Amino acid sequence: MTSSPPLPYRPISSVEAGRTPLAIDWVGDVATGSLRMLDQTKLPTEILFIDCQDVETVWEGIKMLRVRGAPAIGIAAAMGVALAGKIHQGTDATDLISKARKASDYLRTSRPTAVNLFWALDRMNRLIDRLQSESVTKIREELLREARLIQSEDRDMCIAIGLAGTPRMPKQGGVLTHCNAGALATADFGTALSVIFHAHAAGHQIKAYVDETRPLLQGSRLTAWELMQRGVPTTLLCDNMAASLMRTGKVHAVVVGADRIAANGDTANKIGTYGVAVIARAHGVPFYVAAPSSTFDFSIADGSQIPIEIRDAKEITHGMGKQTAPEGVDVYNPAFDVTPAEYITAFFTEAGEIAPPYLENLAARLRK
Amino acid sequence: MTSSPPLPYRPISSVEAGRTPLAIDWVGDVATGSLRMLDQTKLPTEILFIDCQDVETVWEGIKMLRVRGAPAIGIAAAMGVALAGKIHQGTDATDLISKARKASDYLRTSRPTAVNLFWALDRMNRLIDRLQSESVTKIREELLREARLIQSEDRDMCIAIGLAGTPRMPKQGGVLTHCNAGALATADFGTALSVIFHAHAAGHQIKAYVDETRPLLQGSRLTAWELMQRGVPTTLLCDNMAASLMRTGKVHAVVVGADRIAANGDTANKIGTYGVAVIARAHGVPFYVAAPSSTFDFSIADGSQIPIEIRDAKEITHGMGKQTAPEGVDVYNPAFDVTPAEYITAFFTEAGEIAPPYLENLAARLRK
Repeated sequence: MTSSPPLPYRPISSVEAGRTPLAIDWVGDVATGSLRMLDQTKLPTEILFIDCQDVETVWEGIKMLRVRGAPAIGIAAAMGVALAGKIHQGTDATDLISKARKASDYLRTSRPTAVNLFWALDRMNRLIDRLQSESVTKIREELLREARLIQSEDRDMCIAIGLAGTPRMPKQGGVLTHCNAGALATADFGTALSVIFHAHAAGHQIKAYVDETRPLLQGSRLTAWELMQRGVPTTLLCDNMAASLMRTGKVHAVVVGADRIAANGDTANKIGTYGVAVIARAHGVPFYVAAPSSTFDFSIADGSQIPIEIRDAKEITHGMGKQTAPEGVDVYNPAFDVTPAEYITAFFTEAGEIAPPYLENLAARLRK
Repeated sequence: MTSSPPLPYRPISSVEAGRTPLAIDWVGDVATGSLRMLDQTKLPTEILFIDCQDVETVWEGIKMLRVRGAPAIGIAAAMGVALAGKIHQGTDATDLISKARKASDYLRTSRPTAVNLFWALDRMNRLIDRLQSESVTKIREELLREARLIQSEDRDMCIAIGLAGTPRMPKQGGVLTHCNAGALATADFGTALSVIFHAHAAGHQIKAYVDETRPLLQGSRLTAWELMQRGVPTTLLCDNMAASLMRTGKVHAVVVGADRIAANGDTANKIGTYGVAVIARAHGVPFYVAAPSSTFDFSIADGSQIPIEIRDAKEITHGMGKQTAPEGVDVYNPAFDVTPAEYITAFFTEAGEIAPPYLENLAARLRK
């Protein structure tokens, strides 16, 4: 980080960013406060908060994708353990420790493949171990403090990513994004959207263009919604309209998030990202990937080694609940695609912007 | 056409192609037969035929897009005039002539911007003028004969286009198409799909890949359906998955239809076509346009002069009837895009294959 020049931009607060509900938050103090979860399955037509009164409600919210996005899930789980502390009756500290452990074990079963969930709960478990001989009051306070620390660390990381990318955003122009890499998936701001939010707050006249992102429409349901909530001028388009839009000259940069990045910079992200990279190059539009260092997997040499999940055909044939394709049609429905590193102009990380050559620079800047 | 070498392929009949219902057809003779319209708004979940007993039903079918595609609409209208002859009671020829004229005028109001509709009805009107002194029986027969001639001429043209493209189809491999340029839009076979049908019938082991074609899903609703009906192995994908699919090496050619083609070969077609052309080029996949000579507009120098219809935002925000985007979001929803001629490997027309340079070759082969 010491090699990055100082940036002419500063972090923005959630308040400055506009009144966007956070995906997950603890509202109030440890004794009387509560765990508030935004039900993302109801977006964009309804803003519904779930006031979680018990750990079961948190578990159900994670399970049913009411909260989604790896960092947001981790925060929800950690706060779920803190909730077990809050609702504990009595003064028996041993009993509380036992309940916190049970809550942690239980929450772990909500999404069996969510790495961030395990990471956050392991961190809470290590804290629980250290709290064995503390009072009930102290245990409660420390559980919430740790959950809030996980939240604020993630928020700080998202801010750093946003600041890293802001100088590359047009002073006045269009920025296209794909899928949802926003506040809804993280503690706040997100990754790709953090760049747009920070540039917008810094006075760049940004017009955001959002791919709807078939089949699950994260772009239209979530990304367009949170950009509008924070006052960023937003235009929605179908995925197949991005090439036509770029040809009009209205798109000056593309910024997307990432699911997993190989040592050479090959980037797995939501299906359709690679196509956007190809058409961006054809129109001379820079293509940026915004991601925390935890997304970079140096054990993977290149994108060919990233396994791609193939999802249920019904996501395509029964979009939005209605059958729109012939019964029994064969379907190609990969969840992700891999954008080769040579299509990526730069990465925005919490350690700043990283430019090619990636094999060398990613390891130098990010490898621990 | 004399400059084209003889093709090693022959026309296929509708029967050979498999039992696909035609979009529009006259079943039986002039006295007892009937006008049968496939209700395309019910596809792909229901195969419903409308047995048109009066001209109003034909008008409603065109108006409500139960029959769509310029050539199919023209055939429906011409057969609608023939239907007015069939249902005429009595032996007064003057009365029948008057009713046929009324039917023609009435059908003209069903789709005010459909050029093929006017062309077909003008042709029927010229016939009516010539039939003034004929008997009722003769008038009836001639009206149906003319409508069937319009149908068979279109079918022959579609077959010629299919045969023109067949040699360029892989002997064994994948062919991607976008939107619907099939039998459902024409008398039979279509344009782009005619190429696939003829190659398939000629023994090429074709695997068809079909973009779903947001926002109106003509690919999943219509194209996938008619390919499957005729036994072509078919895989459906979301538009944003085509780049990922091409990277796997499974697509060996792209063939699409056209809405309007300028003198230099720039081609307007359903939104998303241009993006497919860009990613095809990036993967070294040939990109073909199949269209009748009537689609070429030599009064337009290049694609910049083709007006692009901008359609209702609700097609994107309320796909399949359900709201999936924030209230009031700005939307980019062009109906078509323009693929520059340099992305097009060749055109398949009823006058054979036409290769670059297009400015010279299109005029030489197609301009009357």
